[in-house]
Amino acid sequence: MKTRDVALYPIAGPLFTDLYELTMAAGYYRHGLHDQQATFSVFVRNPGKKRSYFVAAGLETVLAEISRYHLTDDQRIYLASLGLFPEEFLDYLGQLRFTGDVWALPEGTIFFPEEPIMEITAPLVEAQLIETFVLNTLGLASLIATKAARCVHAACGRPLVDFALRRTQGQDAGDQVARSAYLAGFTATSNVRAGKRFGLPVAGTMAHAFISAFPSEIEAFRAFVDVFPSNAILLIDTYDTLEGARNAATVGLEMQARGQTLRGVRLDSGDMRALSHAVRAILDHAGLTDASIYASSSFDEFSINALVQADAPIDAFGVGTRMGVSADAPYLDIVYKLVRLGGRDVRKLSPGKITLAGKKQVFRRRNSDGRYREDMIACRAEVIEDAESLLKPVMVGGQPSDTGSTLSALRDRFATEFARLPLRYKDIHRYAAYPVSISVKLQARQP
Amino acid sequence: MKTRDVALYPIAGPLFTDLYELTMAAGYYRHGLHDQQATFSVFVRNPGKKRSYFVAAGLETVLAEISRYHLTDDQRIYLASLGLFPEEFLDYLGQLRFTGDVWALPEGTIFFPEEPIMEITAPLVEAQLIETFVLNTLGLASLIATKAARCVHAACGRPLVDFALRRTQGQDAGDQVARSAYLAGFTATSNVRAGKRFGLPVAGTMAHAFISAFPSEIEAFRAFVDVFPSNAILLIDTYDTLEGARNAATVGLEMQARGQTLRGVRLDSGDMRALSHAVRAILDHAGLTDASIYASSSFDEFSINALVQADAPIDAFGVGTRMGVSADAPYLDIVYKLVRLGGRDVRKLSPGKITLAGKKQVFRRRNSDGRYREDMIACRAEVIEDAESLLKPVMVGGQPSDTGSTLSALRDRFATEFARLPLRYKDIHRYAAYPVSISVKLQARQP
Repeated sequence: MKTRDVALYPIAGPLFTDLYELTMAAGYYRHGLHDQQATFSVFVRNPGKKRSYFVAAGLETVLAEISRYHLTDDQRIYLASLGLFPEEFLDYLGQLRFTGDVWALPEGTIFFPEEPIMEITAPLVEAQLIETFVLNTLGLASLIATKAARCVHAACGRPLVDFALRRTQGQDAGDQVARSAYLAGFTATSNVRAGKRFGLPVAGTMAHAFISAFPSEIEAFRAFVDVFPSNAILLIDTYDTLEGARNAATVGLEMQARGQTLRGVRLDSGDMRALSHAVRAILDHAGLTDASIYASSSFDEFSINALVQADAPIDAFGVGTRMGVSADAPYLDIVYKLVRLGGRDVRKLSPGKITLAGKKQVFRRRNSDGRYREDMIACRAEVIEDAESLLKPVMVGGQPSDTGSTLSALRDRFATEFARLPLRYKDIHRYAAYPVSISVKLQARQP
Repeated sequence: MKTRDVALYPIAGPLFTDLYELTMAAGYYRHGLHDQQATFSVFVRNPGKKRSYFVAAGLETVLAEISRYHLTDDQRIYLASLGLFPEEFLDYLGQLRFTGDVWALPEGTIFFPEEPIMEITAPLVEAQLIETFVLNTLGLASLIATKAARCVHAACGRPLVDFALRRTQGQDAGDQVARSAYLAGFTATSNVRAGKRFGLPVAGTMAHAFISAFPSEIEAFRAFVDVFPSNAILLIDTYDTLEGARNAATVGLEMQARGQTLRGVRLDSGDMRALSHAVRAILDHAGLTDASIYASSSFDEFSINALVQADAPIDAFGVGTRMGVSADAPYLDIVYKLVRLGGRDVRKLSPGKITLAGKKQVFRRRNSDGRYREDMIACRAEVIEDAESLLKPVMVGGQPSDTGSTLSALRDRFATEFARLPLRYKDIHRYAAYPVSISVKLQARQP
């Protein structure tokens, strides 16, 4: 499925905004500034203590939304009812469309703090009014893609499945989490709607309720493999995990006798390291060496890594809540700053919140083997030798450019790139500053 | 606006589910268990280290969704394409509606760990298939209502405004955060869409970009009050907060001369305590004693409380990201457990995850002054003297009952009830166990 299919993205609409975007817009309009060409830059400021890199995501949602910017009559009536806005401004807003240009990192691009991930150039009002949507969307999608990449790295090649839907922060987050996790290397999601929407592989078999619904655990197992003879992963911790493993082995052998294969068992509570070894022994002893052990138990990159380092015989992890809300760092410090207006560079100087003025480009230099060496933030128009430019033109005059990338192509590209990020920046426990410099020209241009 | 207006809640649809709900449903159907009457109980398990109480929210969204449960043809085609489900089951699913009964805590009810906040009784398949939606919805809405209540408590009566939209975890979360925060006592939101959708007061005036767009700060201030003479809150930290306060004072005096009143200024960075005193002095010295000081600066209950305790002259707080994602605890440990099936009580025994079997009721006893004394979890049918029953029948046979409550009535009720919760359970820094007992009858019924 092509990612650039706007029908995949429901319209949030112009009211998905902080009120102050609208009051500012009214102020610009009244004072004739609304049509001045403006550039806003989106970047992540404070990376926190454990994240050295971030993974860009959410671009397609942004482009789908802003290319359809349109105030409905119903929305206009509501705004008028607030008694804040001059009628002339509401007339103007009613006919407004987004006509600007957008440069952005393609989804799945690895980036670092202070680097622009998107720059929007448009008449001031248009660029101002989409701020809230852009921040919300890029923020959530990149937050989760980053968290998921950390989990994938921690798992050292063992497959991960997104189980987060029941505790993501809302419905929209559920789908975005599934998509971002897949982009970052998860193999499947339990979220059926996201599976349909984005063409993601879906996975999952049974919960404790299914076991409880039958008179005994082994009867529940038999009933389940009867319906799903080729996909059954039996949940074995409802009463006692080791007894559950023995029941699963019994059912696995019954399946074998029918020419079927038990796909695996799932652990969901208790000491994962000890239980996985004990369960592996039970399955192996029964000759079910092909039956996999799946585990799901409040996992995140930290607990996954501990089990992998300890050689726990867990074949795949179901990763839920803590990935799905990025529990250790549940938001990105992502901001949207005016950097150029009407031909002059501008910036804000609040303490600790300096912004780089002007239209910019991010350049990446690699070693001869492709590994990342350093980045440079430069003026948009600069030419930097032996470096690739990361920000791409993704929208021109309000029309998204057709990249033709599929989500799985973006996922493959991310995997290739992630392999080229030096290991020390992937440490899940501590921040390491990747070298990002500011070009001499850009420094000289700061007002 | 009545809360019980289903049009307020877009349909998520039956595919908003973990895949295993559907595979389990197919298993139940094949084995003739799908029609057995089942009861599932929803509750919060581990409260964490700082939360002694929770605030129920999200009920209206749940009722709106499940009363419209319906698989579309398009969704059915997708499920068939997975190659997992027997056609007979998909036919059955295509005609399925939710026909069950729901008991729940009204929105805004204060509850404690282990207490059921919702119990659903329906044919097993129906109750199983809504699990993911119910957990996601009640989880997010109650998470934020709880976080917002903590902020309201910390602010000791100073007004709070929701500024979270740009960094909530997605679009749906943005609206739910605005609604839950209002329910818990916030006075307004910056989220215009939520304002329209739920009839919430909206607030907000200007960002740094507006200041940067003009040749000087004072020109930006003058331009803004020209358009919004009665609502202007001037952001004063773009270049230098104290200079900004002096510019605001100048503009405030100009307004006074025109018979207008400057509503206030907003601090957004720096040392809030020192700056608020200095800015108050500047405004007072100019005679602008009625101009309020608003502050927004990564606030949460902890930083709000520190400023309030230090008597910082801040009149109102804009509270954003940390409230909007419940940053110190970004998910509830909320679960959905089968407790009764086909006339027998059932439960799961996994380590550390014991569930109370059977249909239940939560009873609350108060002191003579109305203050909360203790709760008891009992059998649904028990009669407990001098106690009120908290779970109410909110849906019968798939039809929501009409409570007729408005959101603002629920908000008022929460405020009254919150005043009756003894102070020690409101400590934002540490958990205190509120007395919740289990009735003798319910204990005796555990299988």
